[in-house]
Amino acid sequence: MKKYTTIYDLDNIPETIQEAIQLKENPFSTQLLGRNKTLVMLFFNASLRTRLSTEKAAKNLGMDVMILNVNDAWNLEFEEGSVMNLNSSEHIKEAAQVISQYGDIIAIRAFPTLEDKEKDTSEWILNSFVKYATVPIVNMESATMHPLQALADAITITELQTKQKSKVVLSWAPHPKALPQAVANSFVGMMQELDVDFSIAHPKGYELNPELTLDIPIHYNQEEALKDADFVYVKNWSSYESYGKVLHEDTNWMLTKEKLKEAKFMHCLPVRRNVVVEDAVLDSENSVVIQQSYNRVYSAQIVLKKILENL
Amino acid sequence: MKKYTTIYDLDNIPETIQEAIQLKENPFSTQLLGRNKTLVMLFFNASLRTRLSTEKAAKNLGMDVMILNVNDAWNLEFEEGSVMNLNSSEHIKEAAQVISQYGDIIAIRAFPTLEDKEKDTSEWILNSFVKYATVPIVNMESATMHPLQALADAITITELQTKQKSKVVLSWAPHPKALPQAVANSFVGMMQELDVDFSIAHPKGYELNPELTLDIPIHYNQEEALKDADFVYVKNWSSYESYGKVLHEDTNWMLTKEKLKEAKFMHCLPVRRNVVVEDAVLDSENSVVIQQSYNRVYSAQIVLKKILENL
Amino acid sequence: MKKYTTIYDLDNIPETIQEAIQLKENPFSTQLLGRNKTLVMLFFNASLRTRLSTEKAAKNLGMDVMILNVNDAWNLEFEEGSVMNLNSSEHIKEAAQVISQYGDIIAIRAFPTLEDKEKDTSEWILNSFVKYATVPIVNMESATMHPLQALADAITITELQTKQKSKVVLSWAPHPKALPQAVANSFVGMMQELDVDFSIAHPKGYELNPELTLDIPIHYNQEEALKDADFVYVKNWSSYESYGKVLHEDTNWMLTKEKLKEAKFMHCLPVRRNVVVEDAVLDSENSVVIQQSYNRVYSAQIVLKKILENL
Repeated sequence: MKKYTTIYDLDNIPETIQEAIQLKENPFSTQLLGRNKTLVMLFFNASLRTRLSTEKAAKNLGMDVMILNVNDAWNLEFEEGSVMNLNSSEHIKEAAQVISQYGDIIAIRAFPTLEDKEKDTSEWILNSFVKYATVPIVNMESATMHPLQALADAITITELQTKQKSKVVLSWAPHPKALPQAVANSFVGMMQELDVDFSIAHPKGYELNPELTLDIPIHYNQEEALKDADFVYVKNWSSYESYGKVLHEDTNWMLTKEKLKEAKFMHCLPVRRNVVVEDAVLDSENSVVIQQSYNRVYSAQIVLKKILENL
Repeated sequence: MKKYTTIYDLDNIPETIQEAIQLKENPFSTQLLGRNKTLVMLFFNASLRTRLSTEKAAKNLGMDVMILNVNDAWNLEFEEGSVMNLNSSEHIKEAAQVISQYGDIIAIRAFPTLEDKEKDTSEWILNSFVKYATVPIVNMESATMHPLQALADAITITELQTKQKSKVVLSWAPHPKALPQAVANSFVGMMQELDVDFSIAHPKGYELNPELTLDIPIHYNQEEALKDADFVYVKNWSSYESYGKVLHEDTNWMLTKEKLKEAKFMHCLPVRRNVVVEDAVLDSENSVVIQQSYNRVYSAQIVLKKILENL
Repeated sequence: MKKYTTIYDLDNIPETIQEAIQLKENPFSTQLLGRNKTLVMLFFNASLRTRLSTEKAAKNLGMDVMILNVNDAWNLEFEEGSVMNLNSSEHIKEAAQVISQYGDIIAIRAFPTLEDKEKDTSEWILNSFVKYATVPIVNMESATMHPLQALADAITITELQTKQKSKVVLSWAPHPKALPQAVANSFVGMMQELDVDFSIAHPKGYELNPELTLDIPIHYNQEEALKDADFVYVKNWSSYESYGKVLHEDTNWMLTKEKLKEAKFMHCLPVRRNVVVEDAVLDSENSVVIQQSYNRVYSAQIVLKKILENL
């Protein structure tokens, strides 16, 4: 594998999921693979799970890890041809080439502006690294995608499914702040790759990018959508149409135990308790969020492993 | 050992001190013990010695170390049942469980508010991790305790004592800012475990928690207290009674060479020169503060070793 | 080697350059040398290349690395005899001695004030560490020197030179902010050690410290200075005479492809495009800035290797 910026960089998703589950059984089995190889992790934004799980995954593979909060370095410029006499000290052209010489793989977290739809959709930061770096790039959540999360989610569903074709519902949830669509987008993509019965539920106005949702059924009635669900993935996102806006908080979309019934509850975390989902769900046996976060190690590890094997 | 949140988690303190002194002779002797084990260090507050010495200790044991400044992640919520629609993005319940999956031991630094006595006394942050984490917790200074420091102090006294029963005095010192009682508290506890003649000196109003000082002699006259002392541990703390307040700075409590006489001078560092203690003391042979800070490596290493042996 | 604070700590510069070029061929050849040795990297200022390349160099040598942003620790006091009742919590005397116990080598980045010429010239931070630390100190750019950069520059020139005695010109460039003279100073020193025809070009008022430039030819006419140059090193610095001031931005000193002609373009990075140098230069084959930054790994690695060999 040459990079992992979206889930489509994986050759064979079901096979990758099985390989990740095997790695989880024996995480240190391929420790020689990463010997004398370095992962550079670049953070433009906050991180807990992604940071620790990706670092752990790299170390499980025997890699060295160097972490840089971009705040500790220089403001980067991404525009072509700009006269850099303002706040940016370094152009991405140099930064990406330079860092490529210090690491064998570069992992990047760079959230969207949620103000400039076109810029965010272009994945200006992530794709600038893809363009100018000379080593493989791993997406640790970009403006529009979170493919390591989606792979961990798919591993979790695969581990837990008890029937041939599970019913999986992605349900929007209320949130006080405007959040990216990245987790939802990557989950939507991933569900189209698995053999599941998938649908999306959200209030009107919260439609995701139609180029991603294609012909997936969309419900505006949450109760109806959740009927007989096996897995309910709850997540807030801001409007894509009215880009980056919180249209309304619709607190009645909070997931409750009553709504969840016997389904498994999924969320990428961090989650705001009693806003996105009530305590009774998170504290129940139905919640699999901790297992999802554990699978972040193995989604990162299988991705790094496939890239290392191709270096 | 299953955790190290207070000095009372140690089975046998004198034996532990001897084991630490042996480790110091041969710090790399147990490098296989930590192989494929990870220490996660979480900082809610500033750190120099604790951060570097604990990281060094873990690496001496062959462990991997992952460090997270909580500021680089999400604001954590600690209240049960709260509706998280304000500044906290993640509940400690999830955070502690998640991080437990990425590390084999979690070390935490979390200072007190110095405003809410009940909250601080409850050790809300540390104990939330103890409650929800599924791996051993190490205290790198919490609201009311600093047990790694106290163990380093005990190692230092043990190394330097020249008589059967040394006289050890903990003497309050002036300071411009309100500081926690944690170092003093843990030292007080530790001195009760050693075979020393221990007393405390401070101006009226600076009494430590009486549940900790029990029947230890307390002097309001510093000169009298220091008479014939072998070890003088100097430290500022804010009032426990008038919780978190600097009642008065009492600059005449600054430790001087004249007051110290032949005793050894101890302090946990960082120390404000010519406020807490005069240059003439710190720059003299009587000061053992550098040795104390060196012993921080071995107090951390023996603690981590005992926890690793029990994993 | 006992420290690396200036290029003059190297015994034999031409030989060191050759050794670095050999290390570059086989970076992992001396991995046992750093076993159980720790590099502590202290940052008072922002860093990208220096941080990642020095960490990589240490790991290539098998060392452990501990990184501390001084902001995550305590404000340090550097004055002798001060009464520390203001913002500084810890004196450099303690800090340097303490850190020396946790690492085998300490590397430090500490920029100048650009306000207090005497203080900066005294290298108050770097030299305080040299004075009080008990382990070797490596300069990762101090108030007046950047010797790891100068060594990387010398490696690059040595790799690329095609004639006996190349013509090398250091040319000042415009910049919106006041920058240190450190890179220019160390490069000036280094060029006096190589067998090159070296000169400096800058507008009047931007003379570097005359104790460093000695009898090196200085040109106030950039075009004349660049004539027949083989290597043009472009760099902004603020005035040394009118200390720390941007006298004028002199935008016509920006390096262009037309001015550069067939010469190689050098810069330490980060570089402001179309202010310091135009895109057409950076994006051309003549630019060797990426190679320079790669050589930062091997300048750091040869320096750390020589220090490790002497521990």
